Amino acid sequence: MKKLMNDPERIVSSFLDGLVAANGTLIQRLEGTDVIVRRSSPPQKVGLVSGGGSGHEPAHAGYVGKGMLDAAVAGEVFTSPGADQFFAAIQAADQGEGVLLLIKNYNGDVMNGEMAQEMAEAEGIKTEMVIINDDVAVNDPDQRRGIAGTVLVQKITGALAETGASLQDAKRIAEKTVSRVRSMSVALTPCTLPAVAQPSFDLAEDEMEVGIGIHGERGMDRREVASSEKTAQLLLESVLKEIPSAAPLALLINGMGSTPLMEQHVFANDVIKQLDRDIQHTYVGDYMTSLDMAGVSLTLLAVDDELSSYLQAPVHTVQWTQC
Amino acid sequence: MKKLMNDPERIVSSFLDGLVAANGTLIQRLEGTDVIVRRSSPPQKVGLVSGGGSGHEPAHAGYVGKGMLDAAVAGEVFTSPGADQFFAAIQAADQGEGVLLLIKNYNGDVMNGEMAQEMAEAEGIKTEMVIINDDVAVNDPDQRRGIAGTVLVQKITGALAETGASLQDAKRIAEKTVSRVRSMSVALTPCTLPAVAQPSFDLAEDEMEVGIGIHGERGMDRREVASSEKTAQLLLESVLKEIPSAAPLALLINGMGSTPLMEQHVFANDVIKQLDRDIQHTYVGDYMTSLDMAGVSLTLLAVDDELSSYLQAPVHTVQWTQC
Repeated sequence: MKKLMNDPERIVSSFLDGLVAANGTLIQRLEGTDVIVRRSSPPQKVGLVSGGGSGHEPAHAGYVGKGMLDAAVAGEVFTSPGADQFFAAIQAADQGEGVLLLIKNYNGDVMNGEMAQEMAEAEGIKTEMVIINDDVAVNDPDQRRGIAGTVLVQKITGALAETGASLQDAKRIAEKTVSRVRSMSVALTPCTLPAVAQPSFDLAEDEMEVGIGIHGERGMDRREVASSEKTAQLLLESVLKEIPSAAPLALLINGMGSTPLMEQHVFANDVIKQLDRDIQHTYVGDYMTSLDMAGVSLTLLAVDDELSSYLQAPVHTVQWTQC
Repeated sequence: MKKLMNDPERIVSSFLDGLVAANGTLIQRLEGTDVIVRRSSPPQKVGLVSGGGSGHEPAHAGYVGKGMLDAAVAGEVFTSPGADQFFAAIQAADQGEGVLLLIKNYNGDVMNGEMAQEMAEAEGIKTEMVIINDDVAVNDPDQRRGIAGTVLVQKITGALAETGASLQDAKRIAEKTVSRVRSMSVALTPCTLPAVAQPSFDLAEDEMEVGIGIHGERGMDRREVASSEKTAQLLLESVLKEIPSAAPLALLINGMGSTPLMEQHVFANDVIKQLDRDIQHTYVGDYMTSLDMAGVSLTLLAVDDELSSYLQAPVHTVQWTQC
């Protein structure tokens, strides 16, 4: 394992410092925390907070800014942030209109988020939480993990929140998006934690892991490495089953951290060729990674006019800018 | 070697198809070529064309659009496009105001670009070429390669061209930028060509290669893997020597293809901490890659008010958008 880093125990903090140093007009770090906040927000805006373990960069700090998140909480690598960190983010994001937490479906994140909600309510801050569970690799919807589809939920909810919507309306559109977004991943290589010399699991030179989680959790299935075409077919079959058949779609091809853009677009080409549907929005790039894992995830979102318009709304964050 | 692809001989064409399929409102492929062109340009605009071997995605097709390139030519992986391809791009980009070629300093690219200029002049199209050679790992300036600094030359020249500037003025600002931009790279791992099973060179688990080119050419020096802090110091020393001491700077930290954003920002943090200078613009991300190489390059550009204003000008391409 070779990584460009210093003390592995301080890699998250150094990452946050670097992100802020490179984008100081847009974001700042809340002193004494691992929380990144927007430098300026419209007044009386409902707050949007997300967060979770690190290792998924640019998620979530890269999505703090106009039209997306007000604050992002970074835990240690693959480790939920504590309730106190979520609480600090909620306090920073609150402008009196309440705060919506967008949380990926992992026990630690949900539990610490709920504790932070209690702390906030005790201070008179209204909060709601929406849990994101787009990964169809897990059959039981209650157990489904949140992966790259999370970013589309953040984009859409953030665009609505920017218009001065209420906490309840932000919750409504986040839940609507969650109910319509589904994803699945494939890994060609495992990832390696900064503090550990060994990869999180082994994959032979001729194997790939299908349905893998963003923390290197085992997938549904290990099989021989397939072509991009066959991999597209495999992921599309699993994800399309869960999407209403007539809806127009948003498509997100997500690189897992060390997959070159050339390969991501080769894969996108195969997905688009096979997807005989109305694709209204296409995104390709590293949106929700898993350290240095090679692989991709495929996300489909069944859009309607409302979701489409919020996907198209202006956004200005470190990682996602549109005019 | 595991790559998400189909026939390795067709990987460039599939990449271009995927890029266009995902960004059809912005770019299109010139039929029968490996040339990507803008869908719409202001009238009577001087044309800006760049290109070279593939394997450096998002360069150059990802920079076609408003405020940057009018056309990009994609050769096979690490192979110069033929003169006919450059000529097709020039024809597509010309609106009667002439075309400026921005070419990285590699013999094949320069030779084929010059042949295409001759073909264009024979058709009555005025052309100029500016050669980019920002890589200070090579001592002889005539032999210096063009690497990530190229993208800043494209951004600045593209912004000027968008204002209706003349061919000569576009050439002037491109040359000015070239004279002020310097870069150097380090690799932690080699890259692997799609059609070849073996990496382009070997690096032991405890080694890194300093001053490497974007085609896996050997660097200046192979040494023990260093911390991000030490690596920042090493690259800064080499690059700063070539930059006037008082000028404010633009800083570009470029990932080489499989370096996670977390590590890129850890490195950016170390560079910014050590760079005791006025940094007016900072960019971090995969701008000019080398397939699946792990590593980074450091680019410094000595800006003045003119260059700064063109860096800040609006741009809308697949990979670089600012409002």
